[in-house]
Amino acid sequence: MRASRYLIATQKETPADAEIISHQLMLRAGLIRKLAAGLYTWLPMGLRTLRKVERIVREEMDRSGAQELLMPAVQPAELWRESGRWDEYGGELLRMNDRHGREFCFGPTHEEVITDLIRNELKSYKQLPANFFQIQTKFRDERRPRFGVMRAREFIMKDAYSFHISAESLDETYQLMHRTYCAIFDRLGLDYRPVQADSGAIGGSGSQEFHVLASSGEDAIVFSTGSDYAANIEKAEAMAPAGERPAPTQAMTEVATPGQRTIANITEFLKEDVTQTVKTLLVKAEAEAGAEEGSDPGLVALVLRGDHSLNEIKAENLAGVADPLTMATDEEIQHATGCAPGSIGPVNLPVPVIVDRSAAHLADFVCGANKDDVHLTGVNWLRDLPLGRVEDLRNVVEGDASPCGQGTLEIRRGIEVGHIFKLGNKYSKALNATVLDENGKTATMSMGCYGIGVSRIVAASIEQNHDDRGILWPDAIAPFRVAVVLLNGHKSPAVAEAGEKLYQQLQQAGYDVLLDDRNERPGVKFADMELTGIPHRFVVSDRGLEAGTLEYKGRSDADKQDVALADAISFLKSVSPL
Amino acid sequence: MRASRYLIATQKETPADAEIISHQLMLRAGLIRKLAAGLYTWLPMGLRTLRKVERIVREEMDRSGAQELLMPAVQPAELWRESGRWDEYGGELLRMNDRHGREFCFGPTHEEVITDLIRNELKSYKQLPANFFQIQTKFRDERRPRFGVMRAREFIMKDAYSFHISAESLDETYQLMHRTYCAIFDRLGLDYRPVQADSGAIGGSGSQEFHVLASSGEDAIVFSTGSDYAANIEKAEAMAPAGERPAPTQAMTEVATPGQRTIANITEFLKEDVTQTVKTLLVKAEAEAGAEEGSDPGLVALVLRGDHSLNEIKAENLAGVADPLTMATDEEIQHATGCAPGSIGPVNLPVPVIVDRSAAHLADFVCGANKDDVHLTGVNWLRDLPLGRVEDLRNVVEGDASPCGQGTLEIRRGIEVGHIFKLGNKYSKALNATVLDENGKTATMSMGCYGIGVSRIVAASIEQNHDDRGILWPDAIAPFRVAVVLLNGHKSPAVAEAGEKLYQQLQQAGYDVLLDDRNERPGVKFADMELTGIPHRFVVSDRGLEAGTLEYKGRSDADKQDVALADAISFLKSVSPL
Repeated sequence: MRASRYLIATQKETPADAEIISHQLMLRAGLIRKLAAGLYTWLPMGLRTLRKVERIVREEMDRSGAQELLMPAVQPAELWRESGRWDEYGGELLRMNDRHGREFCFGPTHEEVITDLIRNELKSYKQLPANFFQIQTKFRDERRPRFGVMRAREFIMKDAYSFHISAESLDETYQLMHRTYCAIFDRLGLDYRPVQADSGAIGGSGSQEFHVLASSGEDAIVFSTGSDYAANIEKAEAMAPAGERPAPTQAMTEVATPGQRTIANITEFLKEDVTQTVKTLLVKAEAEAGAEEGSDPGLVALVLRGDHSLNEIKAENLAGVADPLTMATDEEIQHATGCAPGSIGPVNLPVPVIVDRSAAHLADFVCGANKDDVHLTGVNWLRDLPLGRVEDLRNVVEGDASPCGQGTLEIRRGIEVGHIFKLGNKYSKALNATVLDENGKTATMSMGCYGIGVSRIVAASIEQNHDDRGILWPDAIAPFRVAVVLLNGHKSPAVAEAGEKLYQQLQQAGYDVLLDDRNERPGVKFADMELTGIPHRFVVSDRGLEAGTLEYKGRSDADKQDVALADAISFLKSVSPL
Repeated sequence: MRASRYLIATQKETPADAEIISHQLMLRAGLIRKLAAGLYTWLPMGLRTLRKVERIVREEMDRSGAQELLMPAVQPAELWRESGRWDEYGGELLRMNDRHGREFCFGPTHEEVITDLIRNELKSYKQLPANFFQIQTKFRDERRPRFGVMRAREFIMKDAYSFHISAESLDETYQLMHRTYCAIFDRLGLDYRPVQADSGAIGGSGSQEFHVLASSGEDAIVFSTGSDYAANIEKAEAMAPAGERPAPTQAMTEVATPGQRTIANITEFLKEDVTQTVKTLLVKAEAEAGAEEGSDPGLVALVLRGDHSLNEIKAENLAGVADPLTMATDEEIQHATGCAPGSIGPVNLPVPVIVDRSAAHLADFVCGANKDDVHLTGVNWLRDLPLGRVEDLRNVVEGDASPCGQGTLEIRRGIEVGHIFKLGNKYSKALNATVLDENGKTATMSMGCYGIGVSRIVAASIEQNHDDRGILWPDAIAPFRVAVVLLNGHKSPAVAEAGEKLYQQLQQAGYDVLLDDRNERPGVKFADMELTGIPHRFVVSDRGLEAGTLEYKGRSDADKQDVALADAISFLKSVSPL
């Protein structure tokens, strides 16, 4: 490609609304442009990288034996009603009516459509297992789209769906997809980790996320220092502290705490360690089955150690707690307890109480007294209040014992770029997707699903590969592998001619080449080639040509080097094999 | 690909609701499946062909110097309001509201989005010309989706948009796109014709359609026997008959025609030739500028020869006629003329009259008398009624003089697969897309747009390439170029082994191969390979192996032939060069 005929849409200024480095660099390097919130145009330079990511994903999926197809983006509401998701999915589902008033959505995922297709096409267990994938534009109407293509509304995803006659067959394909995903992310040059996404369970994994490790990641990922255990913090089990609960040593005492309403206030005021305090959060209880619609199901108290944070997903998955988790309002708290939120505690609390494992292990602790501006110290379970229901309610913290039983936990941040999931018969049962089994009997198929965020990978790669001058693309997904920069090409016919010849030779050798033949100052050209992250750069100049050399610099090299003009191709092959 | 691990979703029965052969064969060959009206899933076999079409389009667009990008499918209403199309576009625009209530559409085309992008990115005439394309899923909410992917609602299109500083530059790119489209359709193996789509004007074309000729085509295409002239019948000019209008020879006479209300009735009843009759159609007049909304603009009469058909596009483009064309109701006719529709004529008609060129050339003609069940014979223009406004109102018919001045017209049917169009400054002006010109002054860019219906091409190719056993794919877009069919491969290790070896060798030689290793009867396999249109077929059998041969048959060959096993690759290279 000749740069003079190509849209090099680089920008010097960092866009004000771009919070993370990949978003900034994708705008500055001219890879994307925003059309509207969460909607981005891929400019030519960005699309080249996107297509290379796509190709690697496709090649490895093909190699795994998965069959590519392409389902419509627009899906009829009826199928989503069959699965029950039309009502469940919420605001992220972009719904629309066609000209005849029929309801459709812009597909965020395709479980219903593929299950409908396969229930019609496959008849016998002999046709199983089968795995189908597509690479397609999806839409999720994110409430707060941000971070550029990292959390866009319209995005490109590879989604695959497998069908099975048995759990063993599902497990085999699940493992095959695990290996395929590793091959894909390896080829993409990403530093990634497969992470447990199964609630609580260790090993036998029915769901794993693939995370690219990056400080800007939206997800906190938990690793064990003693094993391969890795989990999304949303799912990492917080173990009960080791040993028995200490015996009481203090008497329970009421203390006036005027105006002290936060844990920080209280620990400061009472000179107590935060680990000796508990906080009590009031949330909505779950409506009972058969309860009248609109009737108030009341509140539930969640008790955690003062230094611990509530894990909302764990909480809302508990029986008796409303899902989604809904905090009580100040009015509801006042009404239920007779006091304001800052002075609530579990002693004599007139609502059901659920205690976190770590809070349940405390002795002589501090808590609110359910009277405004009064706290209790020296509180002990069983002696001063009953200890009923104990659950895992909190997020793990660094240094916690690993739930795998080996080592302690470390926490890093990750960007989810892939997810493999055993669906079991959730969709096949709802849509009645069956085949005849070996005995000629109707059997519901098992399913797996396997997603990769194709457009998100471009951003994730930049999060891992950049410096202060711009992007550092891995060879495999660089928009161009090599740049040939002409110095004074407009004035020197020798430079123009030698550059053109090198450009042709490199292309013939199989390289993607950007010939920078623009009539720009050398500094502008170098800055653009660095900002856009082209991994390899040759410079053609009059001075070099006199000596029969080119200047070569790898994007992350500290120094340039001279390469004989005649050796350019073989040199490049040695540093960047095809 | 091994057929035993591949979705071969062939069907014996012709689906009842598939009207045209390509729709029938795409369903029967397992290329597509319907999800909902106008929404189709591309099954693996169909997607392979679709991707090959896509690749050819992309390669030739790349070769032309156009730059590929990818714009969002979902577009904000604001941009469409800027161009005025939000209100103009009508029911085909699929509109939706996001979770915050903001208006969007699923893009049927991208003039607004590209113009918005380019007005922000390009600053100088030095960056022009520039041509950008994408290959993308579009949506048009067709009122009556039909014919499978031929007129689907969701479809894949290549759309390109070029930007220019001058009309000359636009013309150059327009001509380049014309050549590029010819190269694309040539490589796709289509029998196609570029067709004038410019209203009236000959030569200097601002718009051309590319039509694949097929009897099922939705469009009637007009060709001259004496030149290269070709036009969509919607646009083909109907010339005035040669020579002077004959002189009157009859007196105008009232004739009772009880119950005779159609042209066919009247010609039968009066024993007159249909070419001596005229019909008078009453349509809504155009509302006058500044007229009150809802005020009745009245009617206009369109007079045509009895054997001619009204060209609605020509009519609605005329000053004074409502656009879109709207026929008067029986009540409106009765009210305006005092009689029923079957007896209307231009003599003393109390509404403005527009006469078609051919009707204006008649003498001694027959028409309604504006009294129920009465007609006039021997009517002559100027003598019996004024001849005011004469226009081209009708569709051309076979044998008409060509508007190019050479030869006469023939009519064939076509499927529009491409369209190139000089937009001029329609969008750049509305969206204020300017650059600085040579003199540093602000200049509005000129634009061209260039579309290809990628998914439609698959169906159009089948319309041209099929026989009673199925599809006849050209090599370039066959899902697989070669099938290797094993006879009794499950029972004969020799057949399985030789087949596997041939399969590997063909793949290494660069061919797409489908190895039919299914445990099916030979007849089933042959029928499937023929239905799916695989162009080349080798059969591996025990009997052949004993003689060291394979059986070869080209899909459209009358006979099979034996080929030495050792010569298979070189034989295939000779009949199907890569």
